[in-house]
Amino acid sequence: MTKGQLLYEGKAKKLYTTEEPNVLLVEYKDSATAFNGEKKEEIEGKGILNNRITSLIFEKLQGNGIASHFVKQLSDTQQLVRKVDIIPIEVVVRNIVAGSLAKRIGLEEGTPLKRPIVEFYYKDDELGDPFITTEHIDILELATSAEVSAIYEKALAINKVLQPIFADVNVTLIDFKLEFGRDADGHVLLADEISPDTCRLWDATTKQKLDKDVFRRDLGNLTEVYTIILSRLGGK
Amino acid sequence: MTKGQLLYEGKAKKLYTTEEPNVLLVEYKDSATAFNGEKKEEIEGKGILNNRITSLIFEKLQGNGIASHFVKQLSDTQQLVRKVDIIPIEVVVRNIVAGSLAKRIGLEEGTPLKRPIVEFYYKDDELGDPFITTEHIDILELATSAEVSAIYEKALAINKVLQPIFADVNVTLIDFKLEFGRDADGHVLLADEISPDTCRLWDATTKQKLDKDVFRRDLGNLTEVYTIILSRLGGK
Repeated sequence: MTKGQLLYEGKAKKLYTTEEPNVLLVEYKDSATAFNGEKKEEIEGKGILNNRITSLIFEKLQGNGIASHFVKQLSDTQQLVRKVDIIPIEVVVRNIVAGSLAKRIGLEEGTPLKRPIVEFYYKDDELGDPFITTEHIDILELATSAEVSAIYEKALAINKVLQPIFADVNVTLIDFKLEFGRDADGHVLLADEISPDTCRLWDATTKQKLDKDVFRRDLGNLTEVYTIILSRLGGK
Repeated sequence: MTKGQLLYEGKAKKLYTTEEPNVLLVEYKDSATAFNGEKKEEIEGKGILNNRITSLIFEKLQGNGIASHFVKQLSDTQQLVRKVDIIPIEVVVRNIVAGSLAKRIGLEEGTPLKRPIVEFYYKDDELGDPFITTEHIDILELATSAEVSAIYEKALAINKVLQPIFADVNVTLIDFKLEFGRDADGHVLLADEISPDTCRLWDATTKQKLDKDVFRRDLGNLTEVYTIILSRLGGK
């Protein structure tokens, strides 16, 4: 399978056509961005790490019955995925208070939630990816109510699979962001990536942050902590 | 019934005990505030107007089967209400896009929604009354899930009663904020006020704003437009 035409370039990935109309090629970039693109840096090796980690996690999810757009890892920075129409909603699952939730509801970062919660954000850079509810999704017609229900259930199911995968390697899954798409048959499918760019991951013992907060908050070397996640998950 | 001890002073009202343990006296103040208290002004006559308008609206709601804490208007600036334990949630019902919703989802002010929506805000001045969902309400234990359902249903029922009341006097009910409390038996009861301080009301023909946006956005004389609302509702 070879790289065709550039379809889309995002902050962290490029998307290309392939010979197969329903299969696309994703290329992970070395760019790190935060705060809606206001903070930006090139970090050599980041693309390789996120491609490997996402590939590993999507494989583990598929092994646990969670389908996704992921087909296979193609090279260090490339993977093949099924073509989907991305639903413009960022789905955030939270197990422990951190980031914007701490600011919003005034609970201290690190406070465990009595149950996981799911939040929706409207994927719109100009609006700053605003926090929205299912009623705004309906008003904006971003997804049908059946799709929202499917997304909600899938997000919690993914959390149930991911939590022990990370716990087994002494990492706490604080929260994470998912994106979903519609495949050719109109089915809702997990898409995008799952990596330290899109998860908050803390060492369960030391509480060391092993995710993009290291970049957002200038807490250390991004590739070092992403490498820790990759190797704990059994990758190299 | 006479004014006892001051129990609480808010931005727009004072609350006093009475001889009756389950009845409180509300006194409407002349203060106008906006942007979480950042903008503030004394406007003579505002307290009288909001007390009269709220009394009129609560009477109309009760006539339409919507119970509230309202007992009766006592004087120009005072009313008697049943004592409730206020649930710290601001409940916003929207029929037409305006204010924070326009900013949040990028639709133009004045755009009709295909159906009314209900939003929840955490009543917390320090946090700036953040927008929250039913899941945050659960996490923070602000209300039980049965209470949230009751609040949601009541909010939509109130909208159904208020919309024609305003439409009949050529006023469009754009959106409004409600607060609810628990009475002595633990029942959820509509409380607080319903006035041009808590509603967006536009003249249906001219689209003139007849509510607190006149103060928020320096669009004219607050008492003049509140007087229009009072007189259209049949009060004086």
